Amino acid sequence: MIRVGINGYGTIGKRVAAAVRAQPDMEVVGVAKTRPNHEAATAVAEGFDLYAAIEERRPRFAEAGIKVAGGVEDLVAASEIVVDACPSGVGAENAAMYREHDTPALLQGGEDAEVVDGSFVARANYDAVAGADLVRVVSCNTTGLARLIAPLREAYGIEKLRATLVRRGGDPAQSSRGPINDILPDPVAIPSHHGPDVNTIYPDLDIDTLGLKVPATLMHTHSINVTLESSPEADAVRDLLAAESRLFVIPKWLGLDGAGAIRELAGDAGRPRADVWENCIWGESITVEDRDLYLFQAVHQESDVVPENVDAVRAVLDTASGPESVRRTNRAIGLDGDLG
Amino acid sequence: MIRVGINGYGTIGKRVAAAVRAQPDMEVVGVAKTRPNHEAATAVAEGFDLYAAIEERRPRFAEAGIKVAGGVEDLVAASEIVVDACPSGVGAENAAMYREHDTPALLQGGEDAEVVDGSFVARANYDAVAGADLVRVVSCNTTGLARLIAPLREAYGIEKLRATLVRRGGDPAQSSRGPINDILPDPVAIPSHHGPDVNTIYPDLDIDTLGLKVPATLMHTHSINVTLESSPEADAVRDLLAAESRLFVIPKWLGLDGAGAIRELAGDAGRPRADVWENCIWGESITVEDRDLYLFQAVHQESDVVPENVDAVRAVLDTASGPESVRRTNRAIGLDGDLG
Repeated sequence: MIRVGINGYGTIGKRVAAAVRAQPDMEVVGVAKTRPNHEAATAVAEGFDLYAAIEERRPRFAEAGIKVAGGVEDLVAASEIVVDACPSGVGAENAAMYREHDTPALLQGGEDAEVVDGSFVARANYDAVAGADLVRVVSCNTTGLARLIAPLREAYGIEKLRATLVRRGGDPAQSSRGPINDILPDPVAIPSHHGPDVNTIYPDLDIDTLGLKVPATLMHTHSINVTLESSPEADAVRDLLAAESRLFVIPKWLGLDGAGAIRELAGDAGRPRADVWENCIWGESITVEDRDLYLFQAVHQESDVVPENVDAVRAVLDTASGPESVRRTNRAIGLDGDLG
Repeated sequence: MIRVGINGYGTIGKRVAAAVRAQPDMEVVGVAKTRPNHEAATAVAEGFDLYAAIEERRPRFAEAGIKVAGGVEDLVAASEIVVDACPSGVGAENAAMYREHDTPALLQGGEDAEVVDGSFVARANYDAVAGADLVRVVSCNTTGLARLIAPLREAYGIEKLRATLVRRGGDPAQSSRGPINDILPDPVAIPSHHGPDVNTIYPDLDIDTLGLKVPATLMHTHSINVTLESSPEADAVRDLLAAESRLFVIPKWLGLDGAGAIRELAGDAGRPRADVWENCIWGESITVEDRDLYLFQAVHQESDVVPENVDAVRAVLDTASGPESVRRTNRAIGLDGDLG
């Protein structure tokens, strides 16, 4: 059993903790939290040992009636590997602690690529991070792009990829985020950071990305154009993508017109928190004009990196091959690629 | 004075009526409305003669205490040219009436291109519609694309244009429209109708468009990629576009991050209804990578076609050259291209 510590029990951390616990070859040593709040209460209710991420704030947990198993350094010391799901920038600050304990750690996509030894998407570069000390599981959008790129690149070759990322303004619980009733180029200057971020996974890929923020909270939506090196039929592309376990090609008859309907289906299917771990690609949108492939895909910002974090644990510790890890992760959490 | 009748006094009609009235060479014969409502009341308050668009409903105006000058046929008979600003599909139904009266008419972008003798954007094909019976002033999005295409095509040549149109879900007063908190591919199948619609203006242009709908009401936003036939500097493109009277290249110092801020500026500048007749292009977004130009532009769906309708009147009746008409229209309504 791989002993996994989770530092940070927010949007990503709580989901990764549940997914790690579901794996037959992993156990959750405990989870660290900066302060007692509703998520700390959930962690305790879930039976996770709770560690105080900030030593000075440790008394606050006792005041809230929450038992703490120790400080975050205790958690790191007891773990074979740590998943750091702290807010952007904090992961980089924690890097020294992980190195000091000689404990490998996974940071999240909000950290700079320069901080880590390698960036990770299971389908794209699983084998590249074996034995690394610090690995970054890239952001939700970059993960969604890399998963799509992998099969297209292998099957057809990619001359250039252009994507407009229509991003959700904030997560449902981020009540201070905007915009309300607006469409914001973000960043205004082009390209957005997403293209260079994809290049941390595929260094030689020619990619330009543009980002906008809109008043939605459920999922990001990508408008994708890939100029391929060959000219496949749209149906062949559809079949290629549908064969990928973490790409869900939405059939028309499901009547899923947007993120709301997709998340509704995920909830009806019994997914925890109505999470959607797969890219959701509208089958009807897959179109090829000459060598230009177009499609729309939706990406669930809160959860698509969750199975990637689980795979990254095995990849770094080199306990399973990529395909074997992906199979194992998917089976354990119920990711079957068709949300059924 | 050109005697212009306005059939339909809704979102477009009321704006065109005001713009036509402001022209030194035009007068508004009257405006037709299907039923008495707040817009009919405004028309009367503005001093426009009101005509009943549907004969059977004429008594309703009297019941509401609104004086009617006649039926819509009377308006057509008294007009040299009619601007038809009726809802999509109704313009096509009205075509027979205009032909019967031998009165040229301008339909709006919601009508099919097949219904009319020609489609129109002043900057692109002003001279093509002289003497035509029925002309279509294309939709807000198509107008916004054509205005951008014109100078780029002339200066650099266009190999291919790809655009993702992030569309407002509805106008501010369209309270039954959605989505709320979602991002909808619309249409899901690619390409959207906008590309073929641009081809009614530029038949030989290679263009693919994708559309999405989001929870915003103020303006559409376009994510544009143009593969040019040459490779200009971004600054040169910026200067080229800034020189166009109906393209507003937003300088960074104005701090306009989205449609809300743009419309706020338009209101502060005294624009009627805070209208934005120009395409608004973020200067910072104008980027050239090899021959690939990228930029973001916002388009005000309620008003960007208004000056085009005014120009189309002169174009059809052949009373002024294109550049002269555009100058005259702009001067009369206060369109100065920098919202100042």
